[in-house]
Amino acid sequence: MSEITLDPETWSCPAPVRERPRIVMGHGGGGALSAELVRDIFAPAYGGEALAGMGDAAALTLGGVRLAFSTDTFVVRPLFFPGGSIGDLAVNGTVNDLAMTGARAAYLSCGFVLEEGVELEVVDRVAKALGAAARAAGVEVATGDTKVVEAGHGDGIFINTAGIGLIPAGVDLRPQRVVPGDVVIVSGGIGVHGVAIMSVREGLEFGVELESDCAALGSLVEAMLAVTPDLHVLRDPTRGGLAAALNEIAAASGTGVVLRERDLPVPPAVANACAILGLDPMYVANEGKLVAFVPRESADAVLAAMRAHPLGAGAAIIGEAVEEHPGMVVARTPLGGTRVVDLPIGEQLPRIC
Amino acid sequence: MSEITLDPETWSCPAPVRERPRIVMGHGGGGALSAELVRDIFAPAYGGEALAGMGDAAALTLGGVRLAFSTDTFVVRPLFFPGGSIGDLAVNGTVNDLAMTGARAAYLSCGFVLEEGVELEVVDRVAKALGAAARAAGVEVATGDTKVVEAGHGDGIFINTAGIGLIPAGVDLRPQRVVPGDVVIVSGGIGVHGVAIMSVREGLEFGVELESDCAALGSLVEAMLAVTPDLHVLRDPTRGGLAAALNEIAAASGTGVVLRERDLPVPPAVANACAILGLDPMYVANEGKLVAFVPRESADAVLAAMRAHPLGAGAAIIGEAVEEHPGMVVARTPLGGTRVVDLPIGEQLPRIC
Repeated sequence: MSEITLDPETWSCPAPVRERPRIVMGHGGGGALSAELVRDIFAPAYGGEALAGMGDAAALTLGGVRLAFSTDTFVVRPLFFPGGSIGDLAVNGTVNDLAMTGARAAYLSCGFVLEEGVELEVVDRVAKALGAAARAAGVEVATGDTKVVEAGHGDGIFINTAGIGLIPAGVDLRPQRVVPGDVVIVSGGIGVHGVAIMSVREGLEFGVELESDCAALGSLVEAMLAVTPDLHVLRDPTRGGLAAALNEIAAASGTGVVLRERDLPVPPAVANACAILGLDPMYVANEGKLVAFVPRESADAVLAAMRAHPLGAGAAIIGEAVEEHPGMVVARTPLGGTRVVDLPIGEQLPRIC
Repeated sequence: MSEITLDPETWSCPAPVRERPRIVMGHGGGGALSAELVRDIFAPAYGGEALAGMGDAAALTLGGVRLAFSTDTFVVRPLFFPGGSIGDLAVNGTVNDLAMTGARAAYLSCGFVLEEGVELEVVDRVAKALGAAARAAGVEVATGDTKVVEAGHGDGIFINTAGIGLIPAGVDLRPQRVVPGDVVIVSGGIGVHGVAIMSVREGLEFGVELESDCAALGSLVEAMLAVTPDLHVLRDPTRGGLAAALNEIAAASGTGVVLRERDLPVPPAVANACAILGLDPMYVANEGKLVAFVPRESADAVLAAMRAHPLGAGAAIIGEAVEEHPGMVVARTPLGGTRVVDLPIGEQLPRIC
């Protein structure tokens, strides 16, 4: 037994030694811990009006022109995975963030952090993948930077991209425009990117043959806006999956969201992998899907336009915005029950993008 | 003695086993190795017209508006140093790249890569420094992203910023506009940032009390452009120092550059530290200085405007552009000789920004 020494000044116990709070993996997961970091540290330090929008990209006016501006850093492991690579993600991730404002990406910046000792051939393969993805998305890499850190102080290759693009006139996509009655549409099968990454991670091979859905969504968004510029909000459900995207929209819009679970498009390979691993596909990351809140009167036409596009062939109506339970997402189960779909705390699997 | 076995097909020696080429620290140094990486890997993979400009920032036209767009990743060690921190650098580095096109920075993106285990208090201090630097520079952080990597796969905090700003009408700053006769002006004492970092690095303390010159140069550039919009080129001599900046301009402009060594403003503390360490101040990084190529007829007025500005109080004319030795930088020594000022291979001290 250890003896407790009372402080002779106060005759009380000394304050317990507390561990200083530290960064944990979940802070990078796109869930509640990430939101906490933004709310408690980043927003008070330098948050302005644009950052407060808290969307995937900022919508700005500069020189009288409406611009979207966004950034993402990519730390995915492994660098190459079925259906893509960190180079593809670095382009498509930022292009998609811009697309969620309705903007077609025009220019990207590209910042590499390379770890000493990485083979030049690997850098070359990543750069070529990045170039091919940029050409496919119709975006130009306009400016770049390269830093090198000592072996053991990085992890092969990290890539940051930032992007800018023009927001078309009449387009105003943000959660605040969501109203009860809006129809929720997802552009295709969910959870594919996350499961593809898991399938190649050390210790997590489970025989599932699945390629990442990593793709640039700019042309799909254009096809949707051609039906009506009056879409209410778009979001690409990456880290934290569909659950995180819908919770963010519900919280920012102040409406409730009801999903019908049986209408969720979950590819069989994703369903199997999630069953084996005990995961919920709604929380698994996507890199080539979007979720849209669309006015009821346009929903059928928008859905048809999505299904006519190669990246929206699997589009489905999965639910709606409601007046009840504002800020909360609930799912109706196939058996007629309901369950709350919470914001995830962190990410189920770190470093998937 | 080892025996050599000839290949029975050709009766010649087998090809030697070569080590695969790998990334070395110098690839991040802003010198010849960095240029090689861009020329051999990045430019062929995704280099377009804007990237080919090879300036600190790209000058673009988007929606009829002339924009500057730039990015930099910051991996400096230590995170806090005399006169600044990684947060200050992350703002000022990108703001200055934009300023070198004549643009006043309007918006920044900010991407953090945090290492698991970093204390939240350290993240908070860095974020606050970043916010204060942004307010001082008059730029808004509009969009951000945070990733976390496992302990041992990062190094505390890396920050990428990208920035956009408007380029004023009539301003066209690029090396191709340099002509023989242009006067070369530097805005103040050189080598201060690099020496300040060295002074706190483990094993390199040598008792020099010097604060980094880290500062945002937007208002200095505005004061210079108020004299004449017809400046020819500006460059902030960061990694690789003044030598790298002048070599890049000489190479891109196809003119020669002659410096007068005795006119170079080198603060005594920098001169002493460089003498001890065997460094040349011309190769040491700056984070709050610029070098300008100015038409001869405007040089005195521009110099006066610079000296009237707090960030240009130590401005000096240090040389000129010449027809001789195109693409080459030479220095006239105090004893009347000349020496070639080469492009550095890498950086003398890694991770200074």
